Amino acid sequence: MIDVAVVGYGNVGRCAVQAVQAAPDLHLAGVVLHREGQIPPELEGCQVEPQIDRLSHRPQVVLLCVPSRSAPGLAQVYLAQGFCTVDSFDIHPQIWETRCQLDGVAKAHGVAAVLSAGWDPGTDSVVRTLMEVCAPRGITYTDFGPGMSMGHTVAAKKTPGVADALSLTVPMGTGLHRRVVYVQLAPGYSHQEVSRAILADPYFAGDETRVVAVEDVRQLLDMGHGVHMTRKGVSGITHNQNLAFSMSINNPALTAQVMVGAARAALQLAPGCYTLPEVPMTSLLPGTLKEKISRLV
Amino acid sequence: MIDVAVVGYGNVGRCAVQAVQAAPDLHLAGVVLHREGQIPPELEGCQVEPQIDRLSHRPQVVLLCVPSRSAPGLAQVYLAQGFCTVDSFDIHPQIWETRCQLDGVAKAHGVAAVLSAGWDPGTDSVVRTLMEVCAPRGITYTDFGPGMSMGHTVAAKKTPGVADALSLTVPMGTGLHRRVVYVQLAPGYSHQEVSRAILADPYFAGDETRVVAVEDVRQLLDMGHGVHMTRKGVSGITHNQNLAFSMSINNPALTAQVMVGAARAALQLAPGCYTLPEVPMTSLLPGTLKEKISRLV
Repeated sequence: MIDVAVVGYGNVGRCAVQAVQAAPDLHLAGVVLHREGQIPPELEGCQVEPQIDRLSHRPQVVLLCVPSRSAPGLAQVYLAQGFCTVDSFDIHPQIWETRCQLDGVAKAHGVAAVLSAGWDPGTDSVVRTLMEVCAPRGITYTDFGPGMSMGHTVAAKKTPGVADALSLTVPMGTGLHRRVVYVQLAPGYSHQEVSRAILADPYFAGDETRVVAVEDVRQLLDMGHGVHMTRKGVSGITHNQNLAFSMSINNPALTAQVMVGAARAALQLAPGCYTLPEVPMTSLLPGTLKEKISRLV
Repeated sequence: MIDVAVVGYGNVGRCAVQAVQAAPDLHLAGVVLHREGQIPPELEGCQVEPQIDRLSHRPQVVLLCVPSRSAPGLAQVYLAQGFCTVDSFDIHPQIWETRCQLDGVAKAHGVAAVLSAGWDPGTDSVVRTLMEVCAPRGITYTDFGPGMSMGHTVAAKKTPGVADALSLTVPMGTGLHRRVVYVQLAPGYSHQEVSRAILADPYFAGDETRVVAVEDVRQLLDMGHGVHMTRKGVSGITHNQNLAFSMSINNPALTAQVMVGAARAALQLAPGCYTLPEVPMTSLLPGTLKEKISRLV
Protein backbone atom coordinates (compact mmCIF):
# COMPACT_ATOMS: atom_id res chain seq x y z
CA MET A 1 0.00 0.00 0.00
CA ILE A 2 1.15 3.50 -0.82
CA ASP A 3 0.68 6.02 1.99
CA VAL A 4 -0.72 9.28 0.68
CA ALA A 5 -1.48 12.58 2.40
CA VAL A 6 -3.91 15.14 1.03
CA VAL A 7 -2.93 18.76 1.63
CA GLY A 8 -5.86 21.18 1.41
CA TYR A 9 -9.54 20.45 1.53
CA GLY A 10 -11.40 22.46 -1.09
CA ASN A 11 -13.31 20.87 -3.95
CA VAL A 12 -10.27 19.00 -5.25
CA GLY A 13 -9.04 18.00 -1.77
CA ARG A 14 -12.44 16.51 -0.90
CA CYS A 15 -12.44 14.49 -4.12
CA ALA A 16 -8.81 13.47 -3.56
CA VAL A 17 -9.70 11.95 -0.18
CA GLN A 18 -12.53 10.03 -1.88
CA ALA A 19 -10.27 8.85 -4.73
CA VAL A 20 -7.49 7.74 -2.36
CA GLN A 21 -10.02 5.82 -0.28
CA ALA A 22 -11.51 4.22 -3.43
CA ALA A 23 -8.08 3.10 -4.72
CA PRO A 24 -7.16 -0.55 -4.08
CA ASP A 25 -3.47 0.19 -3.54
CA LEU A 26 -3.47 3.48 -1.61
CA HIS A 27 -3.85 4.29 2.05
CA LEU A 28 -4.89 7.73 3.27
CA ALA A 29 -2.24 8.72 5.79
CA GLY A 30 -4.26 11.82 6.61
CA VAL A 31 -5.32 15.29 5.60
CA VAL A 32 -3.15 18.33 6.24
CA LEU A 33 -5.05 21.58 6.77
CA HIS A 34 -2.60 24.42 7.30
CA ARG A 35 -5.34 26.67 8.63
CA GLU A 36 -6.93 25.15 11.70
CA GLY A 37 -10.71 25.17 11.78
CA GLN A 38 -13.70 22.93 12.10
CA ILE A 39 -13.08 19.45 10.71
CA PRO A 40 -15.69 18.44 8.11
CA PRO A 41 -17.89 15.58 9.40
CA GLU A 42 -16.94 13.22 6.55
CA LEU A 43 -13.32 13.28 7.79
CA GLU A 44 -14.34 11.80 11.15
CA GLY A 45 -12.36 8.55 10.88
CA CYS A 46 -9.37 10.21 9.27
CA GLN A 47 -6.37 11.94 10.82
CA VAL A 48 -6.44 15.69 10.17
CA GLU A 49 -3.41 17.73 11.19
CA PRO A 50 -2.11 21.25 10.66
CA GLN A 51 1.36 19.86 9.92
CA ILE A 52 2.43 16.79 8.00
CA ASP A 53 4.93 15.59 10.62
CA ARG A 54 2.07 15.06 13.07
CA LEU A 55 0.59 12.24 10.95
CA SER A 56 1.13 8.83 12.56
CA HIS A 57 1.91 7.21 9.18
CA ARG A 58 4.54 9.13 7.28
CA PRO A 59 3.16 9.47 3.73
CA GLN A 60 5.29 8.64 0.69
CA VAL A 61 3.39 11.02 -1.55
CA VAL A 62 1.66 14.33 -0.87
CA LEU A 63 -1.25 15.48 -3.05
CA LEU A 64 -1.21 19.28 -3.10
CA CYS A 65 -4.88 20.23 -3.39
CA VAL A 66 -4.24 23.94 -2.94
CA PRO A 67 -4.74 26.98 -5.19
CA SER A 68 -2.38 26.92 -8.18
CA ARG A 69 -0.47 29.97 -7.03
CA SER A 70 0.50 28.26 -3.77
CA ALA A 71 1.32 24.87 -5.28
CA PRO A 72 4.91 25.38 -6.52
CA GLY A 73 6.11 26.92 -3.27
CA LEU A 74 4.44 24.25 -1.20
CA ALA A 75 5.79 21.52 -3.47
CA GLN A 76 9.32 22.75 -2.80
CA VAL A 77 8.71 22.64 0.97
CA TYR A 78 7.43 19.05 0.85
CA LEU A 79 10.05 17.84 -1.65
CA ALA A 80 12.76 19.24 0.61
CA GLN A 81 11.34 17.09 3.40
CA GLY A 82 11.70 13.97 1.24
CA PHE A 83 8.09 13.56 0.16
CA CYS A 84 7.09 12.94 -3.44
CA THR A 85 4.57 15.56 -4.54
CA VAL A 86 1.71 15.76 -7.01
CA ASP A 87 -0.12 18.94 -7.93
CA SER A 88 -2.55 20.18 -10.56
CA PHE A 89 -0.82 23.53 -11.12
CA ASP A 90 -2.70 25.07 -14.05
CA ILE A 91 -1.01 28.36 -14.90
CA HIS A 92 0.06 27.21 -18.36
CA PRO A 93 2.68 29.90 -19.17
CA GLN A 94 4.57 29.13 -15.94
CA ILE A 95 4.69 25.35 -16.24
CA TRP A 96 8.13 24.97 -17.83
CA GLU A 97 9.79 27.37 -15.41
CA THR A 98 8.08 25.70 -12.45
CA ARG A 99 9.13 22.28 -13.71
CA CYS A 100 12.78 23.41 -13.76
CA GLN A 101 12.56 24.78 -10.21
CA LEU A 102 10.90 21.67 -8.79
CA ASP A 103 13.24 19.41 -10.77
CA GLY A 104 16.24 20.82 -8.92
CA VAL A 105 14.67 20.48 -5.49
CA ALA A 106 13.33 16.99 -6.22
CA LYS A 107 16.71 15.73 -7.44
CA ALA A 108 18.51 17.27 -4.47
CA HIS A 109 16.25 15.32 -2.13
CA GLY A 110 15.97 12.07 -4.09
CA VAL A 111 12.23 12.26 -4.75
CA ALA A 112 9.90 12.83 -7.69
CA ALA A 113 7.36 15.57 -8.32
CA VAL A 114 4.54 15.26 -10.83
CA LEU A 115 3.54 18.75 -11.90
CA SER A 116 0.27 19.85 -13.51
CA ALA A 117 -1.33 16.43 -13.09
CA GLY A 118 -4.94 17.41 -13.63
CA TRP A 119 -6.89 17.23 -16.86
CA ASP A 120 -5.76 20.47 -18.53
CA PRO A 121 -2.88 20.67 -18.03
CA GLY A 122 -2.61 16.94 -17.47
CA THR A 123 -4.40 14.23 -19.38
CA ASP A 124 -5.35 16.70 -22.15
CA SER A 125 -1.62 17.45 -22.51
CA VAL A 126 -0.96 13.75 -23.06
CA VAL A 127 -3.70 13.65 -25.71
CA ARG A 128 -2.34 16.78 -27.43
CA THR A 129 1.10 15.15 -27.56
CA LEU A 130 -0.34 11.87 -28.84
CA MET A 131 -2.31 13.69 -31.54
CA GLU A 132 0.86 15.37 -32.74
CA VAL A 133 2.64 12.01 -32.77
CA CYS A 134 -0.14 10.75 -35.10
CA ALA A 135 -0.17 13.77 -37.40
CA PRO A 136 2.92 15.95 -36.87
CA ARG A 137 1.78 18.70 -39.25
CA GLY A 138 -1.61 20.28 -38.57
CA ILE A 139 -3.56 22.25 -35.98
CA THR A 140 -4.93 21.07 -32.63
CA TYR A 141 -7.86 22.97 -31.17
CA THR A 142 -8.76 22.68 -27.49
CA ASP A 143 -12.33 23.79 -26.84
CA PHE A 144 -13.29 23.95 -23.19
CA GLY A 145 -16.69 23.79 -21.61
CA PRO A 146 -19.42 24.44 -21.09
CA GLY A 147 -18.23 24.75 -17.51
CA MET A 148 -17.22 27.14 -14.79
CA SER A 149 -13.89 28.94 -15.12
CA MET A 150 -12.41 29.43 -11.65
CA GLY A 151 -10.05 32.20 -12.72
CA HIS A 152 -12.68 34.22 -14.58
CA THR A 153 -15.18 33.72 -11.77
CA VAL A 154 -12.71 35.15 -9.27
CA ALA A 155 -12.04 38.12 -11.58
CA ALA A 156 -15.77 38.78 -12.02
CA LYS A 157 -16.39 38.58 -8.27
CA LYS A 158 -13.83 41.34 -7.68
CA THR A 159 -15.69 43.78 -9.97
CA PRO A 160 -17.37 46.66 -8.08
CA GLY A 161 -21.12 46.12 -7.88
CA VAL A 162 -20.87 42.33 -8.03
CA ALA A 163 -22.25 40.51 -4.97
CA ASP A 164 -21.60 37.09 -6.44
CA ALA A 165 -20.61 35.78 -9.86
CA LEU A 166 -20.06 32.72 -11.99
CA SER A 167 -18.14 32.82 -15.26
CA LEU A 168 -19.04 30.06 -17.66
CA THR A 169 -16.70 29.05 -20.49
CA VAL A 170 -18.68 28.18 -23.60
CA PRO A 171 -16.86 26.51 -26.52
CA MET A 172 -17.19 28.25 -29.89
CA GLY A 173 -14.94 25.83 -31.80
CA THR A 174 -11.41 26.27 -33.22
CA GLY A 175 -10.13 27.18 -29.74
CA LEU A 176 -12.38 30.23 -29.34
CA HIS A 177 -14.55 30.65 -26.27
CA ARG A 178 -17.44 32.79 -25.15
CA ARG A 179 -17.53 33.87 -21.52
CA VAL A 180 -21.00 34.10 -20.03
CA VAL A 181 -20.73 35.86 -16.70
CA TYR A 182 -23.72 35.43 -14.39
CA VAL A 183 -23.72 38.21 -11.80
CA GLN A 184 -25.73 38.92 -8.71
CA LEU A 185 -25.80 42.71 -8.45
CA ALA A 186 -24.90 44.51 -5.23
CA PRO A 187 -27.55 47.00 -4.05
CA GLY A 188 -27.45 50.27 -5.98
CA TYR A 189 -25.60 48.92 -9.03
CA SER A 190 -27.11 48.54 -12.48
CA HIS A 191 -26.58 45.66 -14.86
CA GLN A 192 -25.26 48.10 -17.42
CA GLU A 193 -22.47 49.56 -15.30
CA VAL A 194 -21.39 46.16 -13.94
CA SER A 195 -21.43 44.74 -17.45
CA ARG A 196 -19.26 47.59 -18.72
CA ALA A 197 -16.76 47.10 -15.88
CA ILE A 198 -16.45 43.37 -16.58
CA LEU A 199 -16.05 43.87 -20.33
CA ALA A 200 -13.27 46.41 -19.62
CA ASP A 201 -11.34 43.91 -17.45
CA PRO A 202 -8.28 42.69 -19.38
CA TYR A 203 -9.05 39.19 -18.08
CA PHE A 204 -12.11 39.14 -20.36
CA ALA A 205 -10.71 41.25 -23.20
CA GLY A 206 -9.57 38.34 -25.38
CA ASP A 207 -12.93 36.57 -25.55
CA GLU A 208 -16.48 37.42 -26.53
CA THR A 209 -18.16 38.14 -23.18
CA ARG A 210 -21.81 38.41 -22.13
CA VAL A 211 -22.90 39.51 -18.68
CA VAL A 212 -26.22 38.20 -17.40
CA ALA A 213 -27.83 39.43 -14.17
CA VAL A 214 -29.46 36.76 -12.01
CA GLU A 215 -31.16 36.68 -8.61
CA ASP A 216 -29.04 33.95 -7.04
CA VAL A 217 -25.78 32.73 -8.53
CA ARG A 218 -25.65 29.73 -6.18
CA GLN A 219 -28.57 28.15 -8.03
CA LEU A 220 -26.39 27.90 -11.15
CA LEU A 221 -23.35 26.25 -9.62
CA ASP A 222 -22.43 22.95 -11.23
CA MET A 223 -19.01 21.28 -11.17
CA GLY A 224 -19.57 19.72 -14.59
CA HIS A 225 -17.09 20.69 -17.25
CA GLY A 226 -15.83 19.39 -20.54
CA VAL A 227 -13.39 19.62 -23.35
CA HIS A 228 -13.40 18.84 -27.04
CA MET A 229 -10.01 18.57 -28.72
CA THR A 230 -9.56 18.09 -32.42
CA ARG A 231 -6.60 17.77 -34.72
CA LYS A 232 -6.65 17.60 -38.50
CA GLY A 233 -3.22 16.98 -39.88
CA VAL A 234 -0.74 15.08 -41.97
CA SER A 235 0.86 11.67 -41.31
CA GLY A 236 3.93 11.39 -43.55
CA ILE A 237 2.57 12.92 -46.76
CA THR A 238 -1.03 11.80 -46.18
CA HIS A 239 -3.39 14.67 -45.41
CA ASN A 240 -6.80 14.83 -43.75
CA GLN A 241 -6.03 12.66 -40.74
CA ASN A 242 -8.75 13.55 -38.24
CA LEU A 243 -8.52 12.97 -34.49
CA ALA A 244 -10.82 14.04 -31.67
CA PHE A 245 -10.97 13.66 -27.90
CA SER A 246 -13.80 14.82 -25.70
CA MET A 247 -14.94 14.60 -22.11
CA SER A 248 -17.97 15.60 -20.11
CA ILE A 249 -16.94 15.32 -16.49
CA ASN A 250 -17.17 16.49 -12.90
CA ASN A 251 -14.16 18.80 -12.82
CA PRO A 252 -12.73 18.42 -9.28
CA ALA A 253 -13.46 14.67 -9.23
CA LEU A 254 -11.47 14.15 -12.42
CA THR A 255 -8.63 16.40 -11.29
CA ALA A 256 -8.33 14.49 -8.02
CA GLN A 257 -8.47 11.11 -9.74
CA VAL A 258 -5.65 12.04 -12.12
CA MET A 259 -3.59 13.24 -9.13
CA VAL A 260 -4.13 9.87 -7.46
CA GLY A 261 -2.79 8.14 -10.60
CA ALA A 262 0.20 10.47 -10.59
CA ALA A 263 0.93 9.51 -6.98
CA ARG A 264 1.64 5.95 -8.16
CA ALA A 265 3.83 7.23 -10.98
CA ALA A 266 5.81 9.49 -8.62
CA LEU A 267 7.06 6.45 -6.71
CA GLN A 268 8.28 4.75 -9.88
CA LEU A 269 10.04 7.73 -11.44
CA ALA A 270 13.69 8.67 -11.01
CA PRO A 271 14.17 11.77 -8.82
CA GLY A 272 13.11 14.92 -10.67
CA CYS A 273 10.02 16.77 -11.80
CA TYR A 274 7.74 15.57 -14.59
CA THR A 275 4.66 16.72 -16.42
CA LEU A 276 2.19 14.01 -17.50
CA PRO A 277 3.34 13.62 -21.14
CA GLU A 278 6.77 12.75 -19.72
CA VAL A 279 5.34 9.89 -17.67
CA PRO A 280 4.46 6.40 -19.02
CA MET A 281 0.68 6.03 -18.74
CA THR A 282 0.89 2.49 -17.34
CA SER A 283 2.65 3.86 -14.24
CA LEU A 284 -0.53 5.76 -13.26
CA LEU A 285 -2.59 2.58 -12.83
CA PRO A 286 -2.47 -0.09 -10.12
CA GLY A 287 -1.84 -3.74 -10.97
CA THR A 288 0.95 -5.72 -12.55
CA LEU A 289 2.44 -4.73 -15.88
CA LYS A 290 1.39 -8.09 -17.31
CA GLU A 291 -2.22 -7.54 -16.36
CA LYS A 292 -2.27 -3.95 -17.62
CA ILE A 293 -0.61 -4.71 -20.94
CA SER A 294 -2.76 -7.78 -21.58
CA ARG A 295 -5.92 -5.78 -20.91
CA LEU A 296 -5.15 -2.34 -22.33
CA VAL A 297 -2.62 -2.71 -25.18
CA MET B 1 19.89 13.10 -37.22
CA ILE B 2 18.67 9.60 -36.43
CA ASP B 3 19.49 7.01 -39.09
CA VAL B 4 16.50 4.77 -39.74
CA ALA B 5 16.06 1.76 -42.01
CA VAL B 6 12.68 0.57 -43.26
CA VAL B 7 12.34 -3.20 -43.58
CA GLY B 8 9.56 -4.28 -45.92
CA TYR B 9 7.75 -2.24 -48.53
CA GLY B 10 4.03 -2.97 -48.43
CA ASN B 11 1.45 -0.29 -47.60
CA VAL B 12 3.00 0.48 -44.22
CA GLY B 13 6.59 0.35 -45.53
CA ARG B 14 5.80 2.82 -48.30
CA CYS B 15 4.22 5.22 -45.78
CA ALA B 16 7.14 4.70 -43.39
CA VAL B 17 9.60 5.84 -46.05
CA GLN B 18 7.44 8.94 -46.60
CA ALA B 19 7.16 9.64 -42.87
CA VAL B 20 10.91 9.22 -42.28
CA GLN B 21 11.64 11.56 -45.19
CA ALA B 22 9.11 14.11 -43.87
CA ALA B 23 10.60 14.07 -40.34
CA PRO B 24 12.96 16.95 -39.50
CA ASP B 25 15.25 14.81 -37.34
CA LEU B 26 15.41 11.48 -39.20
CA HIS B 27 17.51 10.27 -42.08
CA LEU B 28 16.49 7.31 -44.22
CA ALA B 29 19.50 4.97 -44.20
CA GLY B 30 17.73 2.78 -46.72
CA VAL B 31 15.08 0.18 -47.38
CA VAL B 32 15.68 -3.51 -46.77
CA LEU B 33 13.73 -5.87 -49.03
CA HIS B 34 14.50 -9.46 -48.12
CA ARG B 35 13.01 -10.70 -51.37
CA GLU B 36 14.84 -9.25 -54.33
CA GLY B 37 12.68 -7.87 -57.11
CA GLN B 38 11.99 -4.76 -59.08
CA ILE B 39 12.65 -1.59 -57.11
CA PRO B 40 9.65 0.75 -57.07
CA PRO B 41 10.35 3.95 -59.04
CA GLU B 42 9.74 6.25 -56.04
CA LEU B 43 12.72 4.62 -54.27
CA GLU B 44 15.08 5.79 -57.04
CA GLY B 45 17.26 8.05 -54.88
CA CYS B 46 17.25 5.71 -51.92
CA GLN B 47 19.47 2.74 -51.10
CA VAL B 48 17.57 -0.54 -51.34
CA GLU B 49 19.32 -3.71 -50.21
CA PRO B 50 18.39 -7.31 -49.49
CA GLN B 51 20.41 -7.21 -46.26
CA ILE B 52 20.81 -4.47 -43.70
CA ASP B 53 24.60 -4.76 -43.46
CA ARG B 54 24.87 -3.64 -47.07
CA LEU B 55 23.52 -0.15 -46.24
CA SER B 56 26.27 2.49 -46.37
CA HIS B 57 24.90 4.24 -43.27
CA ARG B 58 24.37 1.84 -40.40
CA PRO B 59 20.89 2.64 -39.05
CA GLN B 60 20.29 3.12 -35.33
CA VAL B 61 16.66 2.03 -35.59
CA VAL B 62 14.89 -0.44 -37.84
CA LEU B 63 11.19 -0.04 -38.64
CA LEU B 64 9.77 -3.50 -39.23
CA CYS B 65 7.03 -2.97 -41.82
CA VAL B 66 6.35 -6.66 -42.29
CA PRO B 67 3.32 -8.86 -41.64
CA SER B 68 2.58 -9.20 -37.91
CA ARG B 69 3.40 -12.88 -37.83
CA SER B 70 6.96 -12.24 -39.06
CA ALA B 71 7.60 -9.19 -36.87
CA PRO B 72 8.63 -10.80 -33.53
CA GLY B 73 11.10 -13.20 -35.14
CA LEU B 74 12.60 -10.48 -37.29
CA ALA B 75 12.78 -8.11 -34.32
CA GLN B 76 14.88 -10.67 -32.45
CA VAL B 77 17.26 -10.97 -35.40
CA TYR B 78 17.76 -7.19 -35.63
CA LEU B 79 17.96 -6.65 -31.86
CA ALA B 80 20.66 -9.33 -31.67
CA GLN B 81 22.63 -7.29 -34.23
CA GLY B 82 22.44 -4.23 -31.99
CA PHE B 83 19.70 -2.32 -33.78
CA CYS B 84 16.76 -0.76 -31.97
CA THR B 85 13.52 -2.03 -33.48
CA VAL B 86 9.99 -0.72 -33.90
CA ASP B 87 7.06 -2.79 -35.13
CA SER B 88 3.30 -2.58 -35.30
CA PHE B 89 2.64 -6.18 -34.25
CA ASP B 90 -1.13 -6.39 -33.88
CA ILE B 91 -1.97 -9.89 -32.65
CA HIS B 92 -3.41 -8.65 -29.33
CA PRO B 93 -3.43 -11.94 -27.37
CA GLN B 94 0.28 -12.50 -28.07
CA ILE B 95 1.54 -9.04 -27.14
CA TRP B 96 2.56 -9.72 -23.53
CA GLU B 97 4.39 -12.93 -24.37
CA THR B 98 6.13 -11.27 -27.32
CA ARG B 99 7.09 -8.32 -25.13
CA CYS B 100 8.80 -10.70 -22.68
CA GLN B 101 10.72 -12.47 -25.45
CA LEU B 102 11.92 -9.26 -27.08
CA ASP B 103 12.70 -7.74 -23.68
CA GLY B 104 15.28 -10.46 -23.01
CA VAL B 105 16.94 -10.15 -26.40
CA ALA B 106 16.94 -6.33 -26.29
CA LYS B 107 18.50 -6.24 -22.82
CA ALA B 108 21.12 -8.82 -23.79
CA HIS B 109 22.21 -6.59 -26.67
CA GLY B 110 21.85 -3.20 -24.99
CA VAL B 111 19.12 -1.86 -27.27
CA ALA B 112 15.40 -1.01 -27.05
CA ALA B 113 12.43 -2.44 -28.93
CA VAL B 114 9.09 -0.69 -29.20
CA LEU B 115 6.44 -3.32 -29.77
CA SER B 116 2.96 -2.83 -31.23
CA ALA B 117 3.59 0.81 -32.08
CA GLY B 118 0.71 1.36 -34.49
CA TRP B 119 -2.69 2.80 -33.66
CA ASP B 120 -4.44 -0.28 -32.27
CA PRO B 121 -2.47 -1.65 -30.57
CA GLY B 122 -0.51 1.56 -30.13
CA THR B 123 -1.92 5.03 -29.66
CA ASP B 124 -5.38 3.59 -28.89
CA SER B 125 -3.73 1.58 -26.10
CA VAL B 126 -2.35 4.81 -24.64
CA VAL B 127 -5.83 6.36 -24.79
CA ARG B 128 -7.44 3.29 -23.18
CA THR B 129 -4.90 3.51 -20.36
CA LEU B 130 -5.44 7.25 -19.96
CA MET B 131 -9.21 6.80 -19.86
CA GLU B 132 -8.84 4.28 -17.05
CA VAL B 133 -6.57 6.70 -15.20
CA CYS B 134 -9.40 9.27 -15.40
CA ALA B 135 -12.19 6.91 -14.38
CA PRO B 136 -10.81 3.67 -12.89
CA ARG B 137 -14.21 1.99 -12.57
CA GLY B 138 -16.32 1.70 -15.73
CA ILE B 139 -16.33 0.20 -19.20
CA THR B 140 -14.30 1.22 -22.25
CA TYR B 141 -15.68 0.34 -25.66
CA THR B 142 -13.45 0.33 -28.75
CA ASP B 143 -15.50 0.54 -31.94
CA PHE B 144 -13.51 0.15 -35.13
CA GLY B 145 -14.33 1.30 -38.60
CA PRO B 146 -15.78 1.66 -41.01
CA GLY B 147 -12.66 0.32 -42.64
CA MET B 148 -11.01 -2.68 -44.18
CA SER B 149 -9.98 -5.53 -41.89
CA MET B 150 -6.81 -7.12 -43.27
CA GLY B 151 -7.26 -10.38 -41.33
CA HIS B 152 -10.90 -10.88 -42.30
CA THR B 153 -10.16 -9.94 -45.92
CA VAL B 154 -7.46 -12.61 -46.09
CA ALA B 155 -9.85 -15.17 -44.55
CA ALA B 156 -12.60 -14.28 -47.04
CA LYS B 157 -10.20 -14.49 -49.99
CA LYS B 158 -9.32 -18.09 -49.04
CA THR B 159 -12.98 -19.20 -49.25
CA PRO B 160 -13.69 -21.50 -52.22
CA GLY B 161 -15.56 -19.61 -54.95
CA VAL B 162 -14.08 -16.24 -54.01
CA ALA B 163 -12.01 -14.59 -56.74
CA ASP B 164 -11.38 -11.46 -54.69
CA ALA B 165 -12.76 -10.09 -51.45
CA LEU B 166 -12.81 -7.14 -49.09
CA SER B 167 -14.04 -7.42 -45.51
CA LEU B 168 -15.25 -4.16 -44.05
CA THR B 169 -15.51 -3.66 -40.29
CA VAL B 170 -18.56 -1.58 -39.43
CA PRO B 171 -18.96 -0.27 -35.87
CA MET B 172 -22.22 -1.16 -34.12
CA GLY B 173 -21.36 0.51 -30.79
CA THR B 174 -20.45 -0.99 -27.38
CA GLY B 175 -17.57 -2.89 -28.98
CA LEU B 176 -19.74 -4.87 -31.39
CA HIS B 177 -18.99 -4.94 -35.10
CA ARG B 178 -20.70 -5.98 -38.29
CA ARG B 179 -18.56 -7.54 -41.00
CA VAL B 180 -19.63 -6.68 -44.53
CA VAL B 181 -17.76 -8.94 -46.91
CA TYR B 182 -17.70 -7.81 -50.52
CA VAL B 183 -16.90 -10.76 -52.77
CA GLN B 184 -16.13 -11.17 -56.42
CA LEU B 185 -17.42 -14.63 -57.31
CA ALA B 186 -15.27 -17.16 -59.18
CA PRO B 187 -16.91 -18.61 -62.31
CA GLY B 188 -19.48 -21.30 -61.51
CA TYR B 189 -20.07 -20.26 -57.87
CA SER B 190 -23.27 -18.73 -56.54
CA HIS B 191 -23.58 -15.93 -54.04
CA GLN B 192 -25.57 -18.23 -51.78
CA GLU B 193 -22.95 -20.97 -51.46
CA VAL B 194 -20.07 -18.52 -51.03
CA SER B 195 -22.07 -16.62 -48.44
CA ARG B 196 -22.79 -19.83 -46.51
CA ALA B 197 -19.10 -20.80 -46.56
CA ILE B 198 -18.01 -17.41 -45.23
CA LEU B 199 -20.65 -17.41 -42.49
CA ALA B 200 -19.46 -20.88 -41.42
CA ASP B 201 -15.84 -19.72 -41.09
CA PRO B 202 -14.94 -19.45 -37.38
CA TYR B 203 -13.15 -16.20 -38.22
CA PHE B 204 -16.55 -14.59 -38.83
CA ALA B 205 -18.56 -16.56 -36.28
CA GLY B 206 -18.35 -13.97 -33.49
CA ASP B 207 -19.78 -11.06 -35.46
CA GLU B 208 -22.89 -10.31 -37.50
CA THR B 209 -21.74 -10.90 -41.07
CA ARG B 210 -23.25 -9.93 -44.44
CA VAL B 211 -21.84 -11.10 -47.74
CA VAL B 212 -22.37 -8.86 -50.76
CA ALA B 213 -21.45 -9.92 -54.30
CA VAL B 214 -19.87 -7.23 -56.48
CA GLU B 215 -18.41 -7.10 -59.99
CA ASP B 216 -15.01 -5.68 -59.08
CA VAL B 217 -13.69 -5.56 -55.52
CA ARG B 218 -10.79 -3.30 -56.48
CA GLN B 219 -13.24 -0.44 -57.05
CA LEU B 220 -14.08 -0.51 -53.35
CA LEU B 221 -10.57 -0.45 -51.91
CA ASP B 222 -9.92 2.47 -49.59
CA MET B 223 -7.25 2.68 -46.90
CA GLY B 224 -9.44 4.89 -44.73
CA HIS B 225 -10.26 3.53 -41.30
CA GLY B 226 -11.38 4.79 -37.96
CA VAL B 227 -12.07 4.15 -34.33
CA HIS B 228 -14.42 5.49 -31.72
CA MET B 229 -13.53 4.75 -28.11
CA THR B 230 -15.75 5.65 -25.20
CA ARG B 231 -15.55 5.22 -21.47
CA LYS B 232 -18.22 6.03 -18.93
CA GLY B 233 -16.97 5.54 -15.43
CA VAL B 234 -16.29 6.69 -11.91
CA SER B 235 -13.61 9.10 -10.64
CA GLY B 236 -13.30 8.58 -6.89
CA ILE B 237 -16.99 8.24 -5.96
CA THR B 238 -18.26 10.52 -8.74
CA HIS B 239 -20.18 8.65 -11.43
CA ASN B 240 -21.05 9.49 -15.04
CA GLN B 241 -17.63 10.69 -16.15
CA ASN B 242 -17.76 10.46 -19.94
CA LEU B 243 -14.72 10.27 -22.20
CA ALA B 244 -14.43 9.69 -25.93
CA PHE B 245 -11.69 9.45 -28.52
CA SER B 246 -12.19 9.08 -32.23
CA MET B 247 -10.20 9.10 -35.43
CA SER B 248 -10.91 8.98 -39.15
CA ILE B 249 -7.61 8.25 -40.81
CA ASN B 250 -5.60 6.64 -43.59
CA ASN B 251 -4.64 3.39 -41.87
CA PRO B 252 -1.11 2.61 -43.17
CA ALA B 253 -0.12 6.30 -43.10
CA LEU B 254 -1.04 6.57 -39.43
CA THR B 255 0.60 3.25 -38.53
CA ALA B 256 3.84 4.33 -40.21
CA GLN B 257 3.77 7.77 -38.57
CA VAL B 258 3.38 6.26 -35.10
CA MET B 259 6.28 3.90 -35.84
CA VAL B 260 8.42 6.89 -36.78
CA GLY B 261 7.61 8.49 -33.41
CA ALA B 262 8.50 5.25 -31.66
CA ALA B 263 11.88 5.24 -33.42
CA ARG B 264 12.77 8.42 -31.53
CA ALA B 265 11.57 6.91 -28.26
CA ALA B 266 13.58 3.73 -28.80
CA LEU B 267 16.82 5.71 -28.69
CA GLN B 268 15.89 7.34 -25.38
CA LEU B 269 14.70 4.22 -23.57
CA ALA B 270 16.81 1.93 -21.39
CA PRO B 271 17.50 -1.45 -23.04
CA GLY B 272 14.38 -3.62 -23.08
CA CYS B 273 11.05 -3.96 -24.85
CA TYR B 274 8.17 -1.54 -24.41
CA THR B 275 4.61 -1.12 -25.59
CA LEU B 276 3.40 2.46 -26.16
CA PRO B 277 1.60 3.00 -22.82
CA GLU B 278 4.96 2.26 -21.16
CA VAL B 279 6.65 5.07 -23.10
CA PRO B 280 6.48 8.79 -22.23
CA MET B 281 4.59 10.50 -25.06
CA THR B 282 7.05 13.42 -25.27
CA SER B 283 9.79 10.99 -26.33
CA LEU B 284 7.91 10.29 -29.59
CA LEU B 285 8.20 13.87 -30.82
CA PRO B 286 11.21 15.81 -32.10
CA GLY B 287 12.33 19.04 -30.47
CA THR B 288 13.58 20.09 -27.07
CA LEU B 289 11.70 19.18 -23.92
CA LYS B 290 11.30 22.88 -23.13
CA GLU B 291 9.65 23.57 -26.47
CA LYS B 292 7.39 20.52 -26.25
CA ILE B 293 6.26 21.15 -22.69
CA SER B 294 5.69 24.86 -23.29
CA ARG B 295 3.56 24.11 -26.35
CA LEU B 296 1.71 20.92 -25.41
CA VAL B 297 1.30 20.80 -21.61
